[in-house]
Amino acid sequence: MFLNTAWYVAGWDGELKGDGLLARRLLGVNIVFYRGEDGLPVALEDRCCHRLAPLSHGQREGNCLRCMYHGLLFDATGRCVEVPGQERVSEKLRVRGFPLVERDHLLWIWMGAPTLADADRIPDTHWHDSDGWQAERGGYIHYKSNVHLIADNLLDFSHLAFVHNKSIGTRKQGGVKPEVDFFEESVRVRFTTLASAPPPFARQLSKLPGLVDRFNFYVWKIRGSYFEQDSVIAPPGDGYGSNSSLAMKLHTFIALTPEDENSSHYFWSTAHNDFATDVPDVTRQLTAQVASAFEEDRDIIEAQQHSIEASPDAPMIAIAADGTLLRVRRMHDAMVAAEQSAPVVHAIAFRPTATA
Amino acid sequence: MFLNTAWYVAGWDGELKGDGLLARRLLGVNIVFYRGEDGLPVALEDRCCHRLAPLSHGQREGNCLRCMYHGLLFDATGRCVEVPGQERVSEKLRVRGFPLVERDHLLWIWMGAPTLADADRIPDTHWHDSDGWQAERGGYIHYKSNVHLIADNLLDFSHLAFVHNKSIGTRKQGGVKPEVDFFEESVRVRFTTLASAPPPFARQLSKLPGLVDRFNFYVWKIRGSYFEQDSVIAPPGDGYGSNSSLAMKLHTFIALTPEDENSSHYFWSTAHNDFATDVPDVTRQLTAQVASAFEEDRDIIEAQQHSIEASPDAPMIAIAADGTLLRVRRMHDAMVAAEQSAPVVHAIAFRPTATA
Amino acid sequence: MFLNTAWYVAGWDGELKGDGLLARRLLGVNIVFYRGEDGLPVALEDRCCHRLAPLSHGQREGNCLRCMYHGLLFDATGRCVEVPGQERVSEKLRVRGFPLVERDHLLWIWMGAPTLADADRIPDTHWHDSDGWQAERGGYIHYKSNVHLIADNLLDFSHLAFVHNKSIGTRKQGGVKPEVDFFEESVRVRFTTLASAPPPFARQLSKLPGLVDRFNFYVWKIRGSYFEQDSVIAPPGDGYGSNSSLAMKLHTFIALTPEDENSSHYFWSTAHNDFATDVPDVTRQLTAQVASAFEEDRDIIEAQQHSIEASPDAPMIAIAADGTLLRVRRMHDAMVAAEQSAPVVHAIAFRPTATA
Repeated sequence: MFLNTAWYVAGWDGELKGDGLLARRLLGVNIVFYRGEDGLPVALEDRCCHRLAPLSHGQREGNCLRCMYHGLLFDATGRCVEVPGQERVSEKLRVRGFPLVERDHLLWIWMGAPTLADADRIPDTHWHDSDGWQAERGGYIHYKSNVHLIADNLLDFSHLAFVHNKSIGTRKQGGVKPEVDFFEESVRVRFTTLASAPPPFARQLSKLPGLVDRFNFYVWKIRGSYFEQDSVIAPPGDGYGSNSSLAMKLHTFIALTPEDENSSHYFWSTAHNDFATDVPDVTRQLTAQVASAFEEDRDIIEAQQHSIEASPDAPMIAIAADGTLLRVRRMHDAMVAAEQSAPVVHAIAFRPTATA
Repeated sequence: MFLNTAWYVAGWDGELKGDGLLARRLLGVNIVFYRGEDGLPVALEDRCCHRLAPLSHGQREGNCLRCMYHGLLFDATGRCVEVPGQERVSEKLRVRGFPLVERDHLLWIWMGAPTLADADRIPDTHWHDSDGWQAERGGYIHYKSNVHLIADNLLDFSHLAFVHNKSIGTRKQGGVKPEVDFFEESVRVRFTTLASAPPPFARQLSKLPGLVDRFNFYVWKIRGSYFEQDSVIAPPGDGYGSNSSLAMKLHTFIALTPEDENSSHYFWSTAHNDFATDVPDVTRQLTAQVASAFEEDRDIIEAQQHSIEASPDAPMIAIAADGTLLRVRRMHDAMVAAEQSAPVVHAIAFRPTATA
Repeated sequence: MFLNTAWYVAGWDGELKGDGLLARRLLGVNIVFYRGEDGLPVALEDRCCHRLAPLSHGQREGNCLRCMYHGLLFDATGRCVEVPGQERVSEKLRVRGFPLVERDHLLWIWMGAPTLADADRIPDTHWHDSDGWQAERGGYIHYKSNVHLIADNLLDFSHLAFVHNKSIGTRKQGGVKPEVDFFEESVRVRFTTLASAPPPFARQLSKLPGLVDRFNFYVWKIRGSYFEQDSVIAPPGDGYGSNSSLAMKLHTFIALTPEDENSSHYFWSTAHNDFATDVPDVTRQLTAQVASAFEEDRDIIEAQQHSIEASPDAPMIAIAADGTLLRVRRMHDAMVAAEQSAPVVHAIAFRPTATA
């Protein structure tokens, strides 16, 4: 059901502090996260192999994690290294460990076979931690919905005209036909609205005219389940690459990691590097408006999920705009099927290092 | 499981105000109600045929309803009349519409095939809106119980002696044998208690003596699932038709519409036309006492439902008084079976009109 | 699944007051408890045989219980003795009655066939009501966990070092090997920790030295599902039977009665008869500390139960210390199997008497 051979966002770096433990369910698996004494983040299945107590009720010791029911101690790979009152520790005493890499403030987890994990394939999110970029990190929404319903929403921006009619959208966007390009494991969408009203934050934060051109260029990556968008609000006629000092350019990142079949984690950030980077607080203000629009999405998508659960056999009748998301779903399903029939070994064995 | 070819009460007229939408589940179907610009009430299945978002998150436009996810617009029959950004609208884009008639302050819905709907068969409730009648409308109780358990309660007034022993009942009612007449799709019960204490509201609102005769004449209609009762509290020996100025006569209407297998809607009202019609507030005071007795019923019936769910296979052992309700249940089941094997076409096609 | 031919603790005597009714689910059966006018406690299945309304919504009358839906009256054995408005009462109108005995402030219920109930086999808990003993009775915890997980916890005191590391335990206890003796339907454990820190209450309530010897001698009785423990905290070298005036000896009783497959009742008390029996309030202070340690157990055990429900097929990998609890589980399962294949008639018919 889930694509396992992928690096998924598991959390933000700041969620692992001191010797604190973080419990989070990903792809139907309960996982406990912590940071070892050496600073490296660790992910283990959150269930002691002995009597199944959750390790997230345990205690960090050095780079290890101790189950605080009967005291078994597990190292950062999940191997049991101590059983109180017992000299020999069986090889069988082991919990599942997951490759986990901290990069640019994100924690990336590999849910497939650890030998297939290749840290070089972790998606680039350098804007979270680069000179010249201002980024508002740490966004998180818990979604009571299947991950695909959220992806569908991101893939069809015509919903802006209706879901966001009182915030960032305009009715004009309801009729826009996007340009769509398909790649092997991703899709790119260009969604343009010319000569329309700017969203509230643009009116507040810039001197843009009453009508603007709006460009949303975004990519959805099926493996890893994330969305990356450049949105540009520019004076009419300037185009996507506008160099006008009035143009606002925003980079939005959204990683959707399934929690379970019908619930999801939504990690997100906004960043910009070529407008108002010297204006204090502008990123935070922008992001607050985006956050409130995301709540509008959540309202309708959770209602949709609820409706589907109430009538699991009700058919969905496609309209023309659904072509993109239906094709993406087929691509996803084919990738899952391929993974299950013969996973491609495309990577070296995973060894976390302090410099990763 | 449910009898579909019936007019059921779906709500009170006042529940549809301005361009507001009302979401309510009836007979296991989620339905959205609204009033068109023309004033006519509309009932559509509360699930967009496109991506299954609930239409009750939508927006009324004229006589139509727009889904506020991707903007599909549906007319009052459920036909999609607009898809943003698309010229042709497929005939397949359609949600289920339900015949709905507003009459005497009630909204009546037909849950069977629309071609079988005959507005002339809508039950008469003229007392809600007639000269000479004073009515307290708008009563509603949500019941976490199967509809039959509530009907059973209404069909056996011996429960007055126990469920209502601290309010409107007297122990004497526990031994009363009612007179019962069966009709094709209904039952009529005459339940008489002579020379017993009057209920509190009678003591408070009239000059009746310390002992009174009480007459409850009621009809349960299986098709439509409603109860209509005349109750009379009269000086001893006067009889049901007492013309004494002291006699209190009350007309109670209760419509039980299944929400789902194990939950129900309970719409009710009280009315009177031949006592104290000139006393301000008397209807409201009477009704408040009835309402509080209905809560006593709800307590025991929801507890009974809970107990049945905990032991679904526990048998019920009948006592003599159960004859009526068991026969009514058999009549209901036979009507459902008849409907499912060969529904009788007894009506013209349904066309709502502003004058209906 | 449950062992039925056993006397289980159903509650504390003080839970039945005046004409009050107590509803409690035991071994998957809803039961209503009350005290008759004659003072004898009664246990009946909490479901009227007529329309299945809970009898715990009823009303005590003399030694009988009346269902307050339609007024059926049941005697203390569960036989219906009155149906309002009906002269003959069918023999079929009967709810299940349970042998119930009040002894030493506890209510003991027999869940097997009543003819097998032998009050002489009710466990001895004389310390709840004997001269020379000071007892803190009435302890109760509701557990959202299978009863065996709680028994496992009581059977393996090595958890003291981890679950109770901040309260009554010391890390030293993690490595202790107990002495274990098995009997036909029970197990006895001797768990000794020499020269270790005393628990907080010992430091507060006595003049014991900084290091003490701690002895936990306990018995787990499979039939009846209860635990009885003598714990001794003594000056070093004195031994379990220490007569030192400094030694603290505590008797703890815990009865675990299944509520359902995954929830349990935990009735408990503490008592002592040979230290500080003349110090006011000492028992209450001791018990408060024990109560707070029991909450630490509940935290981890309910988390364990939750984890097991999330992964019902996950195996448990045994460590050396698990030998005792695994053997006890096998003994339990063999007793259940024996009961189901051919229950041994080891008792006379049960007749509750006022002097029982």
